Amino acid sequence: MALTKSPYKGTRDFFPKQMRLRNFIFQKMAEVSEQFAYEPYDGPLLEEIDLYRAKSGDELINDQVYSFTDRGGREVAVRPEMTPTVARMVAQIHREVAKPIRWYAIPNLMRYEKPQRGRLREFWQYNADIFGAGQNGEVEIIQLAIAMMKSFGANSSQFEVLINDRRFVDAVFVDLIGLPADLTKKLYKLVDAKNKMDETKFSQEVSAITNDEKKSQTFQEFVSLKTITEIENFAQKYSVTDKTQPLLSILKRFEKLGLNEYVKFEPSIVRGLDYYTGIVFEIFDKHPDNRRAVAGGGAYANLLQIFNEQPLEGVGMGLGEVPLTEFLNSHGLAPDFSKPVLDFLVAHLDPEGEELTAEIASKLREKNKKVELFFGEAKVKKVFNYTDKKDVSYVVFVENGEIRVRDMKNRTETTTSLENLISGNI
Amino acid sequence: MALTKSPYKGTRDFFPKQMRLRNFIFQKMAEVSEQFAYEPYDGPLLEEIDLYRAKSGDELINDQVYSFTDRGGREVAVRPEMTPTVARMVAQIHREVAKPIRWYAIPNLMRYEKPQRGRLREFWQYNADIFGAGQNGEVEIIQLAIAMMKSFGANSSQFEVLINDRRFVDAVFVDLIGLPADLTKKLYKLVDAKNKMDETKFSQEVSAITNDEKKSQTFQEFVSLKTITEIENFAQKYSVTDKTQPLLSILKRFEKLGLNEYVKFEPSIVRGLDYYTGIVFEIFDKHPDNRRAVAGGGAYANLLQIFNEQPLEGVGMGLGEVPLTEFLNSHGLAPDFSKPVLDFLVAHLDPEGEELTAEIASKLREKNKKVELFFGEAKVKKVFNYTDKKDVSYVVFVENGEIRVRDMKNRTETTTSLENLISGNI
Repeated sequence: MALTKSPYKGTRDFFPKQMRLRNFIFQKMAEVSEQFAYEPYDGPLLEEIDLYRAKSGDELINDQVYSFTDRGGREVAVRPEMTPTVARMVAQIHREVAKPIRWYAIPNLMRYEKPQRGRLREFWQYNADIFGAGQNGEVEIIQLAIAMMKSFGANSSQFEVLINDRRFVDAVFVDLIGLPADLTKKLYKLVDAKNKMDETKFSQEVSAITNDEKKSQTFQEFVSLKTITEIENFAQKYSVTDKTQPLLSILKRFEKLGLNEYVKFEPSIVRGLDYYTGIVFEIFDKHPDNRRAVAGGGAYANLLQIFNEQPLEGVGMGLGEVPLTEFLNSHGLAPDFSKPVLDFLVAHLDPEGEELTAEIASKLREKNKKVELFFGEAKVKKVFNYTDKKDVSYVVFVENGEIRVRDMKNRTETTTSLENLISGNI
Repeated sequence: MALTKSPYKGTRDFFPKQMRLRNFIFQKMAEVSEQFAYEPYDGPLLEEIDLYRAKSGDELINDQVYSFTDRGGREVAVRPEMTPTVARMVAQIHREVAKPIRWYAIPNLMRYEKPQRGRLREFWQYNADIFGAGQNGEVEIIQLAIAMMKSFGANSSQFEVLINDRRFVDAVFVDLIGLPADLTKKLYKLVDAKNKMDETKFSQEVSAITNDEKKSQTFQEFVSLKTITEIENFAQKYSVTDKTQPLLSILKRFEKLGLNEYVKFEPSIVRGLDYYTGIVFEIFDKHPDNRRAVAGGGAYANLLQIFNEQPLEGVGMGLGEVPLTEFLNSHGLAPDFSKPVLDFLVAHLDPEGEELTAEIASKLREKNKKVELFFGEAKVKKVFNYTDKKDVSYVVFVENGEIRVRDMKNRTETTTSLENLISGNI
C-alpha cells in the first residue's frame, strides 16, 4: 500500500507560498521586538513533564499534552507553551544579569486539540516577556503588542486591546461574591464565555451559581463597568479602591500615551485559569466575522517559585501565528506571496553560452542578487512562459557571446557587457 | 523538591547570546539559498512513523527515533530528518509545477543520540533539494554548498568538498568485488571509517572481508585514486568507463567553474547506507583539530516511489547547525554576539521627563530604530554602568525638558530638539 501524502492530523505542510507568509510574519515579529530592545531566545522542543505539571497541574497534561516516556525512563512532553521554559531559563540567570530582562521567542508548540478553525495541533506562537519591571513592564508589553499589530498594517478600527486586572477581579470574585472554590471556578468560566451568550442566559447562569440576589446584583454591576469613572464609583461603593488603583493608574497612562483608541477596560477578560496576578489583556479582532482573541497576556508574580527561586515579577504575552493569520486574512492585510521574487533569470540560447551564463549567475550572486540559472539550451518563448509564474525583474539572454537584458517591468531590452551587468549599470 | 533548571538531556537552552548566533547562521543560510532561487518550505514536527520505516527501514527507527503512539492510536515520530517530509510534500505537487523544484528548509530535528561533541539530541539542519534537474542539479547544489560556506567567511584552506559517485562505487563494490550482501555492507562501513584508521589496519580488514587477494588488490587500487587521469586509467583497466563517465564529467565542470580548489574526488565518501544513486559529497573541515564532515548530500532517483509516484530525480544536501558552529569556532569565524545591539537608550533624569522619554522612544521605534526605554528616574552614572553591558550607539537624556544626546562611540554630547532627533539630525 502506498503511503499517505497528507501531513499528520492537525499539522500543516508549508509550501513556499505559505512559508513566505510565515517568514514575513516572523520577520515582523522579530523586527518589532528588537525595536523594543527585546532579545531573542529559544528552548528545547522537549521538556521533562514535571515542568508542566508544576505550573499547570495534571489537567492540561492529561488533556492536551503530547507526552511519552523516553528510552531512559524520563517522562517528557513536546512543549505545549513557552512560559515554563522561559521561567526555567530565567531561573538559571536572573541573579547575575541586569534587570529588566526582556526576551522574545517564536517556538513551534504542540497541543492535542481537535482540529478546528483557529486551532491546530502544531502551531507557532510569538512570546514576549519582561522580568523585573513592575507596571512599566505591563505598559511596555501592551505597547509592544499594539506596535506589532500596527506593523502588519492593522489600525484601531480592526483590533483593540481589552484589559483587566486580576487584583480587581479577585477582589470581586473572592472578597465581594465569596463563593466556595468550585463555584468561583464556574463563575470564572462563565465570565470567560460572556461574549458568546445572550444577556438573559448570562444573568440566569450568574443567579444559578451565586444563588443570592445581592451577590448576583454586585456581579452584574461589575460586568457592566466600562469607563474609568464607573470603575471609580464601583470601587467607592464596595470599598475596593486599593484593588482598583493599579488598573486605574494603567488606564490613565494609556490615555496619556495617546493609546486609548486601542486600549479598553473589559471586565469579562479574567484569564481565570491562568497564573496571572496583575494586569491581564487580550487583543481582539473587531471584524464581525472573526470576533475572537488574537493574542493574550498578563502579569505574574511567582513563576520562579517552582525552582525554589525568589519571586521575580514578570509580564508576558503570547501571539499565535494561526489566529494572527486569520486576523490578517479577515482584514485583507496578508500580502500576496504566491510568486517567488527573483532579481535575475539567466538563460543561454546556444550551447556555447553555458559557461558565460554560469559566470553571470555566480557574479550576480556575489552581489547578493537572487538569480535563477535556466538549465540547458533555452528558447525565448519557453523562458517567458516559465517566468510568468515568477516575479522576475530582469531576464538575461546569452546568445552568440552577446548579453541581452530584458527589463520585465518596462518591457525593454538592451545589450550590455558582463562588467556593466555585474556593476548594476543595466 | 525543586524542579531542575537544566534542559532535557542532549538539548540546549539558547540564551540571547547563543540565539543571536543561531539567527545569524539561519539568516545567512536563507540569504544564500534565495541567491540561488531556492524557495522556503517547512513540514510538521511529527510524521506518521511509516514514512520513516518506508525510507530507512526499522534500524533507524528502533535506534534513533523519538516515537510514540498518539491518543488516536497513530504511531508517530518527532522528525529525525527532513528528506522523507520533503519527498511527501513534493509527491503532492510535482505533477502540477514547473521543474526544477528548488526548496530549502531549516527544521529542528530530534534523534536519540548519546550526547557527544558534534552530536546532540535536538539540532537544526539546513536542507536544500532540487528536483528534476539531472547533473545540472548536482553541480548547483554543490555550488550552493560552497557559496554558503564562503558566506560565513570560510575559504579553501579551511574546507573542501569531497565527492564521489554511487554509480562508480557500486560498480566497484558489486560488479568488480562482488561479495555477498552482508560482506558488501561491511565493506561500505569499513571504507566510511577509512580516514579514522591507519593504513595497515585498513588493509588487513579489507583482506579479511574480501578473503581474496585479487579483490583486495582491486579495492586498494580504488581507494587510492585521486586525479582524473588515475580514475580514467582505472576505468580502462577494469572496463567500467561507462560508470565513471558522470563523475569525470562533473569533476571537469567544476574545473571549468574554477571551483577545483574546493572540490576533490575522494573514494572513501560512499554514504553506503543512504538512498543515494548518483553523485555523493561531504563538506570537510580542514582544521587538524576538527577533521570531520560539516555537511553531506547527493543525488537520488527514487524518493517518490514510496508514494506510488513516478520517479523524479533529485539532489539534496544537509548542513547541521551543530557541526557548522564547531567549524566556525575552530576557524574563529563566529562573530561575537555577547552584547545586544541598540540604536538608542532613552532615560529621564527627573520625574517630569517621563512623558517625553516615552514619546521619544515611540517615535524612534516608528523609524525602525532599536530603542530601550530606561525605566524610572535615572542617574547618569547608573545609566552608563548599565549600557556597558550593551552595544548602544546613542544615549538620550531628558532633563529639565531638554534633550541631550550622547554619541557613545565619539563620546560627544549635544543638545537637540525632538524633531531633529527623530529625523536623524543628531
